[in-house]
Amino acid sequence: MGELRVHSVLVTGANRGIGLGLVQHFLGMPTPPKVVFAGCREPKGQRAQELQNLASKHPNLVILPLDVSNPASIKAAAATVKEHLGGSGLTLLINSAGMLKITPPEDVTLEDMMQVYTTNTIGPMLMGQVFLPLLKKAAQGSPGSALSCSKAAIINISSTGGCISSPEVFDMIPIVSYHCSKAALNMLTKCQSLGYQEHSVLCVVLHPGWVQTDMGTPVTVDTSVRGMLKVISFLSEKDTGTFLNWEGKVVPW
Amino acid sequence: MGELRVHSVLVTGANRGIGLGLVQHFLGMPTPPKVVFAGCREPKGQRAQELQNLASKHPNLVILPLDVSNPASIKAAAATVKEHLGGSGLTLLINSAGMLKITPPEDVTLEDMMQVYTTNTIGPMLMGQVFLPLLKKAAQGSPGSALSCSKAAIINISSTGGCISSPEVFDMIPIVSYHCSKAALNMLTKCQSLGYQEHSVLCVVLHPGWVQTDMGTPVTVDTSVRGMLKVISFLSEKDTGTFLNWEGKVVPW
Repeated sequence: MGELRVHSVLVTGANRGIGLGLVQHFLGMPTPPKVVFAGCREPKGQRAQELQNLASKHPNLVILPLDVSNPASIKAAAATVKEHLGGSGLTLLINSAGMLKITPPEDVTLEDMMQVYTTNTIGPMLMGQVFLPLLKKAAQGSPGSALSCSKAAIINISSTGGCISSPEVFDMIPIVSYHCSKAALNMLTKCQSLGYQEHSVLCVVLHPGWVQTDMGTPVTVDTSVRGMLKVISFLSEKDTGTFLNWEGKVVPW
Repeated sequence: MGELRVHSVLVTGANRGIGLGLVQHFLGMPTPPKVVFAGCREPKGQRAQELQNLASKHPNLVILPLDVSNPASIKAAAATVKEHLGGSGLTLLINSAGMLKITPPEDVTLEDMMQVYTTNTIGPMLMGQVFLPLLKKAAQGSPGSALSCSKAAIINISSTGGCISSPEVFDMIPIVSYHCSKAALNMLTKCQSLGYQEHSVLCVVLHPGWVQTDMGTPVTVDTSVRGMLKVISFLSEKDTGTFLNWEGKVVPW
């Protein structure tokens, strides 16, 4: 992890869970990023209290209003990030915002499917589109040609719930809206990796472990985030477009 | 194909392309289904002219108004199908309706993503939900316990455009809304296969080949439909939840 030198990072869904854990760990690094952008829907609300506490101690933390299901909100956030960065690019975008709507398969509605897809899949798609110019700028301003998360990268947080080949996950949580959105997020990441390679932007999808639940092997947020940051630190060109877990193991599609 | 004895079949998107080809081939079988339901958005419109011509010659063809992106339309279609079938179940549901919206990756909007997902993924999800009682009835009324398309089945028409592991398809058509919706449809089929197995409903996802296009190896609608019907005729329990092409070969996720 000592090798991960990120000039700037933006984490979505940063007010809780994995998103918050990532922000905390970035701020606590020996060489922390110059700016950590923490996106959340209501930066001044009660649910962002922990981010507010962190910001009072870390001047390099910028809390952004960001609703990834709202294109206007994404564009406004990008304008703010651009302004903060001056002429620099954004090194790392971590799409951590996600939702799980628990509904029995027979009761899932069109609206459930749309809402979950919008947050879990369309949001990361739009984030990639809108932040691409800043990611390209980071890549251009970075020495060497090898892809890495210190150069420019998008990390999408998915789940083994998106593995089409692993039916056991469906037995645990038969939530079709979630499974479909995460399989689509995995596909999105593959598309991003292929489309953004020419711009030297590395794209990877990560499974953080089953965090804060009693399903499968429970993993604490701290273990998950430490593991993912270690994985992020060693990602290179050969990893772009792959699906890895918090321990760096390849996850099947 | 002589072995495929389907009491009744419903094909969505039946007024053109693969959907229309399937309807034609079902009607032309040595032992055709008692009823072939052909769902399309505007049964009386100009675009359903070929279906109307077929209906004038085949009394076992029932053209249904059906918009798979509209839950009320699906429910109304199910009521009509139930009435036509009397006390019998529906043997085979083929979700063939689909859309492709060609947009450069940088211009894809939230609305594009939603529209394509609604037709390609949510539609088949809702169709499965709403028609499950009729599929269960077909399974219960069929002798033996082995799953097959002569007993009760859902066939979802996907595409290798939904293969996350096959990036070459993305190079051909970099249409993120389509790729994501088809990967999600593949996941949906896996979920349906697991959820509906206890009801003896077989669920498979098929790639029809690249039909009517100049991408990859072109396949005519006739070749594709003949191939898929042959595949459908030999599907058994071991195939449920799998992804096969029109030649019966397993397609990777």
